[in-house]
Amino acid sequence: MSEQLLETAARIAEPDEAVSLDELRLAARNSGLPLEALRYDVTPLGMHYLLVHYDIPHVDLATWTLRVSGAVERELALSLADLRDRPRVTTRVTLECAGNGRARLLPRPVSQPWLDEAVGTAEWTGTPLAPLLAEAGLLPSAVDVSFTGHDHGIERGVEQDYARGLSVADATAPEVLLAYEMNGVPLPPQHGAPLRLVAPGWYGMASVKWLREISVLDRPFDGFQNTVAYRLKQGDEDGEPVTRIRPRALLQPPGFPDFMTRARVLDTGRHVLTGRAWSGMAPVARVQVSTDGGAEWHEASLGADEGRWAWRSWSFAWDATVPGPTVLCCRATDEAGNVQPVDQAWNRQGMASNLVQRVPVLVREAAH
Amino acid sequence: MSEQLLETAARIAEPDEAVSLDELRLAARNSGLPLEALRYDVTPLGMHYLLVHYDIPHVDLATWTLRVSGAVERELALSLADLRDRPRVTTRVTLECAGNGRARLLPRPVSQPWLDEAVGTAEWTGTPLAPLLAEAGLLPSAVDVSFTGHDHGIERGVEQDYARGLSVADATAPEVLLAYEMNGVPLPPQHGAPLRLVAPGWYGMASVKWLREISVLDRPFDGFQNTVAYRLKQGDEDGEPVTRIRPRALLQPPGFPDFMTRARVLDTGRHVLTGRAWSGMAPVARVQVSTDGGAEWHEASLGADEGRWAWRSWSFAWDATVPGPTVLCCRATDEAGNVQPVDQAWNRQGMASNLVQRVPVLVREAAH
Repeated sequence: MSEQLLETAARIAEPDEAVSLDELRLAARNSGLPLEALRYDVTPLGMHYLLVHYDIPHVDLATWTLRVSGAVERELALSLADLRDRPRVTTRVTLECAGNGRARLLPRPVSQPWLDEAVGTAEWTGTPLAPLLAEAGLLPSAVDVSFTGHDHGIERGVEQDYARGLSVADATAPEVLLAYEMNGVPLPPQHGAPLRLVAPGWYGMASVKWLREISVLDRPFDGFQNTVAYRLKQGDEDGEPVTRIRPRALLQPPGFPDFMTRARVLDTGRHVLTGRAWSGMAPVARVQVSTDGGAEWHEASLGADEGRWAWRSWSFAWDATVPGPTVLCCRATDEAGNVQPVDQAWNRQGMASNLVQRVPVLVREAAH
Repeated sequence: MSEQLLETAARIAEPDEAVSLDELRLAARNSGLPLEALRYDVTPLGMHYLLVHYDIPHVDLATWTLRVSGAVERELALSLADLRDRPRVTTRVTLECAGNGRARLLPRPVSQPWLDEAVGTAEWTGTPLAPLLAEAGLLPSAVDVSFTGHDHGIERGVEQDYARGLSVADATAPEVLLAYEMNGVPLPPQHGAPLRLVAPGWYGMASVKWLREISVLDRPFDGFQNTVAYRLKQGDEDGEPVTRIRPRALLQPPGFPDFMTRARVLDTGRHVLTGRAWSGMAPVARVQVSTDGGAEWHEASLGADEGRWAWRSWSFAWDATVPGPTVLCCRATDEAGNVQPVDQAWNRQGMASNLVQRVPVLVREAAH
């Protein structure tokens, strides 16, 4: 616990300041993908990253309804059964937290301290949002759509139910779902039961969990999470909104780990390095791998396309001939030409960082 | 990453040393119980604590067998189907990591940095171990039983498959299970699929995951995890083994949280504080609650007994009349007279710490 009970402003760590107990407390309760779970096309339940701003709320299904209100011709109140009776689709979606990589930035913005692991891919089942909004009847004045969850807390002095807004165009994109199942089972409590938004291609903050109300607005949404929290900025200016997921590749760390350092040990010889890559901005075009800490880059082979919103597997055969330490890296580029930076692109809230992963390994002489 | 690729010795943080990136990396991949999940009698999948020493291994079920070897009359090799054909029992068990609370110790032993959250309760389904060992036929020379998993790594310079030993008496206790289901579904990969040991009452290190071999020994088991890692010691002496879970109570934090500090905000008025308590040493006898940081203690009411190996609910009605900050604490005592300490009982590996939880809250005047 920091000396102040309540946070009043976002803070940047001093240059030599290690991780605080506040940050550790967040790391202990929010969970990342163990990187070896990159082996799965679909992340098994319990290994998908999870970020909860406040508490996981208890939602009583007996009284829960989803309200659709605001600038619509007909306000709606839907039960889960109503939603399940609507057209049903399942989409494989890679979600990533906008704060992924934050704890690797120098200086470090003080918040949930993700390194590389705030990602996961699930099969989300639900009903598309656009037809539901069409049935409610958007008024011509409609500008934004807000999504409010049951999770309640205080953040930089602002007490709130977690809420995010999307433009009408983004909210009515055909891929946007109201999801009630994850990997074929009802949503677990921690992933938003009974209903959450899933906005494919967007950083996870857009996919509001424990959804209770959708409100159509005749003005831009001005809630905390859009106007303050999820912004790209260098100082105290308003900055730009965080939106779609930037390209990123992650390597499934090869060999076996040291318990404490997580460095990898592997023998000389051929190692097929594999991993996943994704971008919410455009399909993945290429993945490159470096086995010498970024000095030289090699082209990886892309695996099958598993759909626009899912990560794509890749592989690269590495002949590890020289014993000793090295660093493995990988880097994704998407079809729009966005590429992961090798040097950090710092911003003061540590948002949307897609700095390349670095995996230290120790190559040892294979026994004969 | 620390400067050394491989850890060579356990380390204690300097008095003013904050959390390292190595510790953070462990916190990001191992996951704790979000404390609001104390509301559930049985922890939903994905919220149970999880500690993995090395990597979650990929176990091929087509070729997996459990071997029973060593000082037995008949060595055995069992498929999962063989194990499922055996007598089936389901037991509700609270498991806690022996390192729980480590990051609250001063000075802080450097390892997985748990605060209070390394616990969970599941319904484990499997077959009792004792009859299986009886069928194998323990030789009179049998002393210990070792359990070896498929997870492989290096720890303080010792390369190993994770393995733990139990005495014959402890291994053949009737509650010890070979578990293949958790909460009614096949074991998730991260919890030990396809088969794990569940040793109720013991800290989690005894419940070996991804089990591949059970070996009956005619000598004491001398593996790293018993003789080096899980020891209670002050310095470089051998110390005492970590065994059964010491009593602990945890409070489901009331009110709502501040995002960054996790401090709680609640209104003046009556709050029914609830939580869970457990001990692997003896049944829980009492739980006490303090609403003033430990100055005064009040008796909580215990809920129904859900079985010897499961945590027990408790509650205490608190009339919060004075606005301002305070600290909530709770403390369990078991029937053997073991009680949680209010001051830390330090040991150099940060094992089996059951220091009372402290939950900072800010009481505010309720709106009228």
